[in-house]
Amino acid sequence: MTIRMGVIGTGAIGADHARRIAQTLTGGQIVAVTDVNLDQARKVVDSLNLNATVYENGHELIKADNIDAILVTSWGPTHEEFVLAAIAAGKYVFCEKPLATTAEGCMRIVEAEIAAGKRMVQVGFMRPYDSGYRLLKQAIDEGSIGQPLMVHAAHRNPTVPEAYVTPMAIVDTLIHELDVFRWLLNDDYVSAQVLYPRATRHTHSKLKDPQIVLLETARGIRIDVEIFVNCRYGYDIQCSVVGEEGIANLPEPQSLLVRKDARLATTILTDWKQRFIAAYDVELQDFLDGVQSGTLRGASSWDGYAAAVAADACVKAQESQQIEAITMPARPAFYG
Amino acid sequence: MTIRMGVIGTGAIGADHARRIAQTLTGGQIVAVTDVNLDQARKVVDSLNLNATVYENGHELIKADNIDAILVTSWGPTHEEFVLAAIAAGKYVFCEKPLATTAEGCMRIVEAEIAAGKRMVQVGFMRPYDSGYRLLKQAIDEGSIGQPLMVHAAHRNPTVPEAYVTPMAIVDTLIHELDVFRWLLNDDYVSAQVLYPRATRHTHSKLKDPQIVLLETARGIRIDVEIFVNCRYGYDIQCSVVGEEGIANLPEPQSLLVRKDARLATTILTDWKQRFIAAYDVELQDFLDGVQSGTLRGASSWDGYAAAVAADACVKAQESQQIEAITMPARPAFYG
Amino acid sequence: MTIRMGVIGTGAIGADHARRIAQTLTGGQIVAVTDVNLDQARKVVDSLNLNATVYENGHELIKADNIDAILVTSWGPTHEEFVLAAIAAGKYVFCEKPLATTAEGCMRIVEAEIAAGKRMVQVGFMRPYDSGYRLLKQAIDEGSIGQPLMVHAAHRNPTVPEAYVTPMAIVDTLIHELDVFRWLLNDDYVSAQVLYPRATRHTHSKLKDPQIVLLETARGIRIDVEIFVNCRYGYDIQCSVVGEEGIANLPEPQSLLVRKDARLATTILTDWKQRFIAAYDVELQDFLDGVQSGTLRGASSWDGYAAAVAADACVKAQESQQIEAITMPARPAFYG
Amino acid sequence: MTIRMGVIGTGAIGADHARRIAQTLTGGQIVAVTDVNLDQARKVVDSLNLNATVYENGHELIKADNIDAILVTSWGPTHEEFVLAAIAAGKYVFCEKPLATTAEGCMRIVEAEIAAGKRMVQVGFMRPYDSGYRLLKQAIDEGSIGQPLMVHAAHRNPTVPEAYVTPMAIVDTLIHELDVFRWLLNDDYVSAQVLYPRATRHTHSKLKDPQIVLLETARGIRIDVEIFVNCRYGYDIQCSVVGEEGIANLPEPQSLLVRKDARLATTILTDWKQRFIAAYDVELQDFLDGVQSGTLRGASSWDGYAAAVAADACVKAQESQQIEAITMPARPAFYG
Repeated sequence: MTIRMGVIGTGAIGADHARRIAQTLTGGQIVAVTDVNLDQARKVVDSLNLNATVYENGHELIKADNIDAILVTSWGPTHEEFVLAAIAAGKYVFCEKPLATTAEGCMRIVEAEIAAGKRMVQVGFMRPYDSGYRLLKQAIDEGSIGQPLMVHAAHRNPTVPEAYVTPMAIVDTLIHELDVFRWLLNDDYVSAQVLYPRATRHTHSKLKDPQIVLLETARGIRIDVEIFVNCRYGYDIQCSVVGEEGIANLPEPQSLLVRKDARLATTILTDWKQRFIAAYDVELQDFLDGVQSGTLRGASSWDGYAAAVAADACVKAQESQQIEAITMPARPAFYG
Repeated sequence: MTIRMGVIGTGAIGADHARRIAQTLTGGQIVAVTDVNLDQARKVVDSLNLNATVYENGHELIKADNIDAILVTSWGPTHEEFVLAAIAAGKYVFCEKPLATTAEGCMRIVEAEIAAGKRMVQVGFMRPYDSGYRLLKQAIDEGSIGQPLMVHAAHRNPTVPEAYVTPMAIVDTLIHELDVFRWLLNDDYVSAQVLYPRATRHTHSKLKDPQIVLLETARGIRIDVEIFVNCRYGYDIQCSVVGEEGIANLPEPQSLLVRKDARLATTILTDWKQRFIAAYDVELQDFLDGVQSGTLRGASSWDGYAAAVAADACVKAQESQQIEAITMPARPAFYG
Repeated sequence: MTIRMGVIGTGAIGADHARRIAQTLTGGQIVAVTDVNLDQARKVVDSLNLNATVYENGHELIKADNIDAILVTSWGPTHEEFVLAAIAAGKYVFCEKPLATTAEGCMRIVEAEIAAGKRMVQVGFMRPYDSGYRLLKQAIDEGSIGQPLMVHAAHRNPTVPEAYVTPMAIVDTLIHELDVFRWLLNDDYVSAQVLYPRATRHTHSKLKDPQIVLLETARGIRIDVEIFVNCRYGYDIQCSVVGEEGIANLPEPQSLLVRKDARLATTILTDWKQRFIAAYDVELQDFLDGVQSGTLRGASSWDGYAAAVAADACVKAQESQQIEAITMPARPAFYG
Repeated sequence: MTIRMGVIGTGAIGADHARRIAQTLTGGQIVAVTDVNLDQARKVVDSLNLNATVYENGHELIKADNIDAILVTSWGPTHEEFVLAAIAAGKYVFCEKPLATTAEGCMRIVEAEIAAGKRMVQVGFMRPYDSGYRLLKQAIDEGSIGQPLMVHAAHRNPTVPEAYVTPMAIVDTLIHELDVFRWLLNDDYVSAQVLYPRATRHTHSKLKDPQIVLLETARGIRIDVEIFVNCRYGYDIQCSVVGEEGIANLPEPQSLLVRKDARLATTILTDWKQRFIAAYDVELQDFLDGVQSGTLRGASSWDGYAAAVAADACVKAQESQQIEAITMPARPAFYG
């Protein structure tokens, strides 16, 4: 059975996911698209040579009979309503982050999904699909470094647009770490603290850069994440897990080792889009396979909610400069 | 258009390729299979849940109307006849190495293909599809290390079966380097020499191990390849290209960097099947895309012939312990 | 002129320094020794074949006419009185850490030295003499990574004796980082915070292990130091300085890169005495040269005092689990 | 007892060794110097503030009563006569490479030393004193990589003076490898072959560059050494020993690991003088200690002779482009 997909939002990421499903992945086809800009939707249909209907809006698309699953890649503030509508229509939905712009919105989706009686939502957190993080999780799960005690991490961008301001370090950048560490450690956060080191000369008055976020988990694991979005030198994701018996580091992306100009060097990526490019394929294929089998395995609504709760606490900690508690309700058995 | 594929030979590699086409790649489907052991062919059909006809033999399969392209993964000595038959039937063919067991056999295929008027054959040399070799070729082609002058390489296996004897170091092992260096350097070989270092205590009387093969190309590039198939420690493919301005090394396979037990270590693979596993997918997808577009881009019959000629010279050099000339006819414009 | 040295305290470090001066370094000779255990002092004289007088106690030794400089390597609580006596006697003094057991004691030495009118004291902080840290400081001072913004560091021991308890993580272990970062960054601390991650199963009730110490400097640089003294895998000193333009890491100690047993590995030291062994030579030679030229360049009394003040704040932060201010008086012009 | 040293030849290396003995090492003092340019000799005495007599020539210096050992750092063609004179005068002698300009000259020294009845000569091959090569030898000797089977090596300079011509790749460059591999493997050479890869555009008509030298040892170990003296990118000494159980690589020189400008890089030296700078200290201290104890441990006259014999064969192989035998007489028991 080929999964018939409808895409809501054909901007950069939406068009890219449509291309994946149409050309690279197996088991899915794009049969419907829409966008706030209908011309843009039509352009994607043309350029990808899709046999797809262009709908007036997301709700019309969701209602269509011939669609098995929905891809929500529209503007963030619209995610919640489309995801809720998809659940109501009994359709699987893959929603790019954020699942909703507030923790409360995420919780409404959680509740709707539980009411519907089965997992229908996958959130677009792609790092657990990255081969490097998978090796790291495997090492942890096999016990080869013992019980994790600390995580030292960094999320660095060479530069960010002028519009990027202090809280975006949490909601746009750290959000990926907030998700991936829960998955990696199989644990939840209990507190957050944010430090502001001396600011780089390459930032501006509305962006404190770099920042250090300190997280504590329920099991007492301490995580420090450097967020440095004007680091100049490259797009660099570092993660080192310190366990009772040893330490494992996330691999560097593949690169030639070159001897040249008095340096022995590998290349560091500068374009974030290249860093997890393979993970996007694996992620979306897993969604298609999950729909096929009726069992979604990727980030759930609950994961989306948990990331939102943690992000809220981190933003609060940015402002208060205090240690802020992160209070999560018990995980529903539904998401066991 | 979906490419309808017939598979001749459903042993390990044939079954694996069938799985790729059926489950992982796009644009192809398996509609026909055969094997010297028909039960084995039927088992593959069942286990992969293929909608495919089982033919009595390769020639019956090749004749079938509803097949666009042939996958030859049968026993080596049968390759030549099936490839020739496929060409005669006007069908694209992907043939695992060797293209034929002799250089003369490869040349017969070259001639048949030229007579047919277009490229119809792709040989299963997968290394040019490996992401690491691609980075290396890109660096060379961009001139970032200048004109290549030397290549230092190694092909190491932890161990080999008892039946593996001295010439197999060339025809089963070095054959991949013989192909990939022609592609990497865009050059042809002119001489070969083989050195026998002190033998490891882990070999036996019929296998000289390790061996060092010295190759010279038409442009004067010198290549040394260590072949060491009882190296114990892992399956390890090394390649360092020394250019006029710098040196580039093939990347190590992805691995965690682990601090444990007084060592800072990455993992070395021990199973050769893991080393190029991703390259097989890319290779076969490229064949499907090539058939789709009518333009094959992978290793050609000529490449298969060239590898066979070079391998013959290397085997001769093993025996003579002399420098042996490698004489290639001029490359036909057809393969330009 | 050969510097005539008297050694107060001939335990492990004292005997080792005596050996250095007698056998490895140039420009000094040991002419006097003492120890609370006079037999031990005599043994060192014999085993090193020294032409040296054994004095009844440190004060007798300090008074002797034929001694140019004093090495204080006795029990920590006696350091202050011997250093003060040496200053009073107009003799240069090299004092192993701690300079005194309290910040007040260090300050008394500072005041005595200032009163004496010239630098007479060098404190035994050896890391600034390590070739790796020197490369790091050179890179910072040359501006090659831009203004430092953060330091990520770790100080790991495979194991510690049973008597090692929580505050020793600061006063015995972190003390080296407290000194070396002031030197590296040319900056002073303004606050400290201590985090307790989940404890390793390899520790006991009186030792919280690991710990994370967060330091802030006057210029706003943020330093995080993981202290993990039961890390099992090795003695491992890590230091990464994040600057506005790039990041530089302290080099790993020299090691072979070995391919064996499915691993590509370098060796991690397990014995802390090996890690800075070369630095001790450079440090003590620099002291001898400084005495010769009348200008000491190593860690000063002020540096000893500053480390003590910072250590006090860190111990307080261990107990309070709060952010503790570190208040240093202005640096006297004398130590400019 | 302080060893009283006389220096014959106060050019760059002679003056540098004099400085070492006078300022850095222990147990020696410079009491006599000479040079073909007496003004240059006097300048060294002045600049190093030596209490040393300037002699008219080497023979006068050797005859002087108050000298225990001789340093021969004069022009290569004069080495043999001064070493022979020192032996005749019963004085220990440290001779920079070459011991003599011909194998026959080296043999005359060997015979004179044997006649004198004890080892009196140390040749200035410094690589066995390099900490990296020592780690490598230790690994081999401990059996941690098993019996060595192959060595892959490279000796690269960024550039050489115009006067550097083809045979100098052997006698000035490879000579260090010829010595160090004998020591590392405890083995002798039996054949040599030289390959000329495509020449770099950065060389000239009188210098074939790069070259590859293939050596075979008595135990059958195969060594390949790339000599590339216009490699542009740095001064780079590589050595990888392939054993029956694993492979060990000579460590890279100490360097910061830096993330900057889209590269993760360590620094490669460009000045050869920096590469073995520490080894010179260790080497000459070992000579002083050897004289003190009456037992020289560094490279012997026999080692100097063996290197000369191997170099002669390599030069012959350059010219003949054939495999040339290397015939060494049996090692005299004297050099056991």
